[in-house]
Amino acid sequence: MRVAVVGATGAVGREMARILSERRFPVDAFVPLASSRSVGRSVSFAGEDHVVGELSLDALRGVDLALVSAGASVARSFVREAAEAGTTCIDNSSAFRMEPDVPLAIPEVNPEALSGSPRIVAIPNCTTITAMLAVAPLHRAAGCRSLVLSSYQSVSGAGWKGTRELAEQIEKLHGDVESLGHPDVDALPAGEVFGKTIAFNVVAKIGEFEPDGFTSEESKMMAEPRKILSAPDLDVVATSVRVPVVVGHSVSILATFERPITASEARAVLSLAPGVELSDDPAAGVYPSPLEAAGRDVAIVGRIRQVPGHDDALLLFSCADNLRMGAALNAVQIAEHLFLR
Amino acid sequence: MRVAVVGATGAVGREMARILSERRFPVDAFVPLASSRSVGRSVSFAGEDHVVGELSLDALRGVDLALVSAGASVARSFVREAAEAGTTCIDNSSAFRMEPDVPLAIPEVNPEALSGSPRIVAIPNCTTITAMLAVAPLHRAAGCRSLVLSSYQSVSGAGWKGTRELAEQIEKLHGDVESLGHPDVDALPAGEVFGKTIAFNVVAKIGEFEPDGFTSEESKMMAEPRKILSAPDLDVVATSVRVPVVVGHSVSILATFERPITASEARAVLSLAPGVELSDDPAAGVYPSPLEAAGRDVAIVGRIRQVPGHDDALLLFSCADNLRMGAALNAVQIAEHLFLR
Repeated sequence: MRVAVVGATGAVGREMARILSERRFPVDAFVPLASSRSVGRSVSFAGEDHVVGELSLDALRGVDLALVSAGASVARSFVREAAEAGTTCIDNSSAFRMEPDVPLAIPEVNPEALSGSPRIVAIPNCTTITAMLAVAPLHRAAGCRSLVLSSYQSVSGAGWKGTRELAEQIEKLHGDVESLGHPDVDALPAGEVFGKTIAFNVVAKIGEFEPDGFTSEESKMMAEPRKILSAPDLDVVATSVRVPVVVGHSVSILATFERPITASEARAVLSLAPGVELSDDPAAGVYPSPLEAAGRDVAIVGRIRQVPGHDDALLLFSCADNLRMGAALNAVQIAEHLFLR
Repeated sequence: MRVAVVGATGAVGREMARILSERRFPVDAFVPLASSRSVGRSVSFAGEDHVVGELSLDALRGVDLALVSAGASVARSFVREAAEAGTTCIDNSSAFRMEPDVPLAIPEVNPEALSGSPRIVAIPNCTTITAMLAVAPLHRAAGCRSLVLSSYQSVSGAGWKGTRELAEQIEKLHGDVESLGHPDVDALPAGEVFGKTIAFNVVAKIGEFEPDGFTSEESKMMAEPRKILSAPDLDVVATSVRVPVVVGHSVSILATFERPITASEARAVLSLAPGVELSDDPAAGVYPSPLEAAGRDVAIVGRIRQVPGHDDALLLFSCADNLRMGAALNAVQIAEHLFLR
């Protein structure tokens, strides 16, 4: 099989190459592609360096599978045509997620969406995936009615430039953290990627503001679960917040259900759920954190508790590696479903 | 007036001294007290250094007002007796907050709780204050029915030792942040204050776990709003999370009301609310962050939006300096109410 990674030099693209190799996906030819800016750089795959070529429909000719993490506008510019020309495209952007003819798939959650050999498959937003891995098994058990989500999202969600901006700001500020109690706000590093200083701060804006006051990230987190769970009436509200974590998104979740469900039933369900590691033993001090989820191929779920006075409502906290679990691993697992089953 | 600060060398104690001086509270004698460990250290007040004495009932004899930030067990050991002996005690711990005979007061929110010259007044939890400054004006306008709170709490909420632990961990890790994408979890700095690494991480446990799975911090955030708002039936759920911010707590809030309320009505109400700075102009990219609230004497509130399909529900994001707005300023403002009106 000829396999392309589009956006090969990006944070998710490099994880895609790494995971293809780790999982021994049957790659006969590895084709790393990117924008003209990155052409000529090299990307490691299966222990060998590969020179990055420029993305074009020509470059994709004869490619069986393209894992695409190049942003929505780039994806819109070539994915439909490439798919018509015979390349199966698994796209990490928001471009096609809500298109009725494109499956929005998390293999552990809704593998049925992958039936019928679709030529384009969309990967959900990384925070949506972090929440859905925890919620979907409970939805199947007890029928989810509503979700309230507040996120704690890492800087690598904005790519290398996000990680670099945090690192640079930390370099400037770490020598005198006590001064941050009375900061000179105008002297703080402004932040080109995140809008505000992200070091020693949290930034409650991810993506762009929309007319209703939600951000584009929040809109994704509110729309995508309905499609993934085939639950058009599911009520979802989200607040998306960037935090100074390098890798690993976390979500605080309040979920209500159609029938009573206890924390211990939820633990039993989640202990058997694919892609989930249950980490929930308060008496022993066991609960999840994003740094423990980084580099791992599971969502770590814990802090499960029943809402006092509401036997149909649970709180949970879910953490997952946004580059792997929330993107690259999901893409490779979709490819495994489509090509290896 | 003889004014003591108990816990004078702590992070909140130093802010209490600073704010007494800034606001020219009529202090004739300043009496800084602490545990035996800190005796002999010096604390600055009104431009002069004062030597810290050891806390005892003897040391409080003749003191008119004690601002106390020394933890719950220390407070329990002396506050009732000191109050009976004539010292008005304003206590920042959880020891007396839910006692029926002790007011739990935020002067901007429920000054009526301070009538009758109480000898003991409790200051709410710092995250509760951050949430209440935003919610109380809306509650008065439209009757709050329920709150879902997820917090983003700074390390200074755990005192100097919290700030020090973050700073030390940042020193160890900042040179190679990219390695945090695949961390060796066993080699990470363990964290004596926060239980887990707090640098480049978030820690979803503040305080101790209780049998129902909530933490003690979450229980405070769920119980205190009912007393502060005199709303015994208010439904509150909370998830408390520590983030690597030095000063400034943030809360993501979903509030439902007894009648429809729009985001613009909420903005109009909050633009007039005492102790609140409205920072909510999405079109201009204006929204709050904790670093901008540090050192400020307001809660900064923004990200106000109506929940789609629910005309009685709003989302908000509130940030406040946990040491000042969430503790020391609140204490001094209570003292002003009791002694200067």
